[in-house]
Amino acid sequence: MRQFNIQSTSDPQFMAQVLDKIDNLTKPKGSLGRLESLAAQVCMIQHTLSPELRNPSNILFAADHGILAQGVSVSPKEVTWQQSYHFLEGGAGISFLCRQHGFRLMVVDAGIDHDMDYSSGIINMKVRKGTRDFSQEAAITPQEFELCLERGAECVDKVSADGCNVISLGEMGCGNTSASSVWMNLLAGIPLAQCIGAGAGLDSQGVIHKLEVLSGAVRRYRAGSKTYSVKDILCYFGGLEMVMAVGAMLRAAELRMVILVDGFIMSACMLAASKLCPEVLDYAVFGHQGDESGHKLLLESMNARPLLHLDLRLGEGSGAVCAYPIVQSAVRMINEMDTFRKASVTKYF
Amino acid sequence: MRQFNIQSTSDPQFMAQVLDKIDNLTKPKGSLGRLESLAAQVCMIQHTLSPELRNPSNILFAADHGILAQGVSVSPKEVTWQQSYHFLEGGAGISFLCRQHGFRLMVVDAGIDHDMDYSSGIINMKVRKGTRDFSQEAAITPQEFELCLERGAECVDKVSADGCNVISLGEMGCGNTSASSVWMNLLAGIPLAQCIGAGAGLDSQGVIHKLEVLSGAVRRYRAGSKTYSVKDILCYFGGLEMVMAVGAMLRAAELRMVILVDGFIMSACMLAASKLCPEVLDYAVFGHQGDESGHKLLLESMNARPLLHLDLRLGEGSGAVCAYPIVQSAVRMINEMDTFRKASVTKYF
Repeated sequence: MRQFNIQSTSDPQFMAQVLDKIDNLTKPKGSLGRLESLAAQVCMIQHTLSPELRNPSNILFAADHGILAQGVSVSPKEVTWQQSYHFLEGGAGISFLCRQHGFRLMVVDAGIDHDMDYSSGIINMKVRKGTRDFSQEAAITPQEFELCLERGAECVDKVSADGCNVISLGEMGCGNTSASSVWMNLLAGIPLAQCIGAGAGLDSQGVIHKLEVLSGAVRRYRAGSKTYSVKDILCYFGGLEMVMAVGAMLRAAELRMVILVDGFIMSACMLAASKLCPEVLDYAVFGHQGDESGHKLLLESMNARPLLHLDLRLGEGSGAVCAYPIVQSAVRMINEMDTFRKASVTKYF
Repeated sequence: MRQFNIQSTSDPQFMAQVLDKIDNLTKPKGSLGRLESLAAQVCMIQHTLSPELRNPSNILFAADHGILAQGVSVSPKEVTWQQSYHFLEGGAGISFLCRQHGFRLMVVDAGIDHDMDYSSGIINMKVRKGTRDFSQEAAITPQEFELCLERGAECVDKVSADGCNVISLGEMGCGNTSASSVWMNLLAGIPLAQCIGAGAGLDSQGVIHKLEVLSGAVRRYRAGSKTYSVKDILCYFGGLEMVMAVGAMLRAAELRMVILVDGFIMSACMLAASKLCPEVLDYAVFGHQGDESGHKLLLESMNARPLLHLDLRLGEGSGAVCAYPIVQSAVRMINEMDTFRKASVTKYF
């Protein structure tokens, strides 16, 4: 597997300097709450007392899932390619959020099961036309897995070359809550029933059917003579856009970028990334806790406290981009607030 | 008392049109969660399917509290006037947040116990130099109360004349968590011990002392031959900046403005405003739930669900202004997202 050389941001001596700066700003100590811890995290990532956020980008990986044939989603497969065009046309959810917060939106065909027109601006990184049906066989091969990691990393290199140092990852892929639920089950050891939700809108019968399909697939997987390595799990259940996101996360951490983590699916990808390289979590800012069942447990398994709780369940990177102004606030706080001394205000703690 | 003519925004027929528009946008139904309900609220306030947010303003009322003499706060009184200058100099917490989100910052002397230099840009609405000590007597008189309401309304008229239709209220006033706790206790019927927190940083001994002082004051108040009207409660415990904020909230609702509600103190003011005119709540968007003990209960007493939970306890309007980009996202959603038909995406719910 491609090796990622990710450094931990830990540095107790420098951290003391960061906290000292924050504690001398004109506010009761700790009164800016999460903005303070977030500012400290960004300082540690960039190893500076005056951090900067530059050219934010949302890379949205799209791909199809063979498991969709088992009726695990309300979304018909064509929605994946239709929406992929739509993102760049400007009228989708992620489109207005990227406009609002000044994000470059890069839409990547990781494995859409459709012949795409790349003159639309969609980046062609297609590894194959959708994954295989993991209720029958492994979704992707080890070679395809490597390609996904490489291409995810390559996308990050592209935006990094343009000066980006804060990145959000998003996804589009009908059926990808199913793959995410299984990853969560097998990587975090959380019972499958607690990893499953309604996706884009299943009713309770639909959720029960989804659980049956996924349980069967996991049983079949376990019955094979498997090593159960992280890579093995990611390959067996896919999807292509998810492994590509894992590659992007690992590369972004290697480049010391701030990584904004979106909802359920991207949290599952961050979990997978952290099982490959635990240091990646130092770079992760969790944007949003959605109402997909299990997302809370998934976040807890990484000790993650997301910034927002807005009941979003759109994906696309929406929860990460939505949280970005809070990260900006944190950076402004440490750069723009006066110290008590400078402001001639009595320090009272 | 000055009468405020606030209309309820309720209109089931128009609401149906709003929800129909939201449900036909290119996303799984309900998948933008709080953005959807927020968009609907703003549509109802402005009675339009294409709402607009214009010239946001944060009006920050500052005043002193006689109760500070009883040792209920870690902040020395001079911090009120020192910080009031500091806000407009640009280096305070609210300063960078207003810059970040394009808010006009209006700092109003509602009753600072100091001779202020108004060439600084601070607006002179001083009613008196601080309130009386409510552990001994009523903090403000009925005449002063009326003046506060009038002047709060006048501030809103000023920003409204400049085209503002979305407003945040903030405060600065050492000791004002004490006044807010008592308002909450008497207006919402929540036991005083549950209404009291650490303010700007009391330790547990300090909190116990604060509870003793406030309990004593409430006992003394109840022992008097009082009518216990809302107005009576607000007068007895003050503060000047708080009553001015109540006047501002009521006037803003009268003008059908979106009102962003900050943390504990502004939530207590919204509670007071709602006891005078319940319809004001239709215009309220609660920005933040802080970690001041009791804020959660206070919000629940108004069925309020704040947008953010970032452990802020700064005041100044910071939690309200911090939440503004989410309101902007909601408005962009309803104005900028395509319908399924327009986007040629299969509608799958």
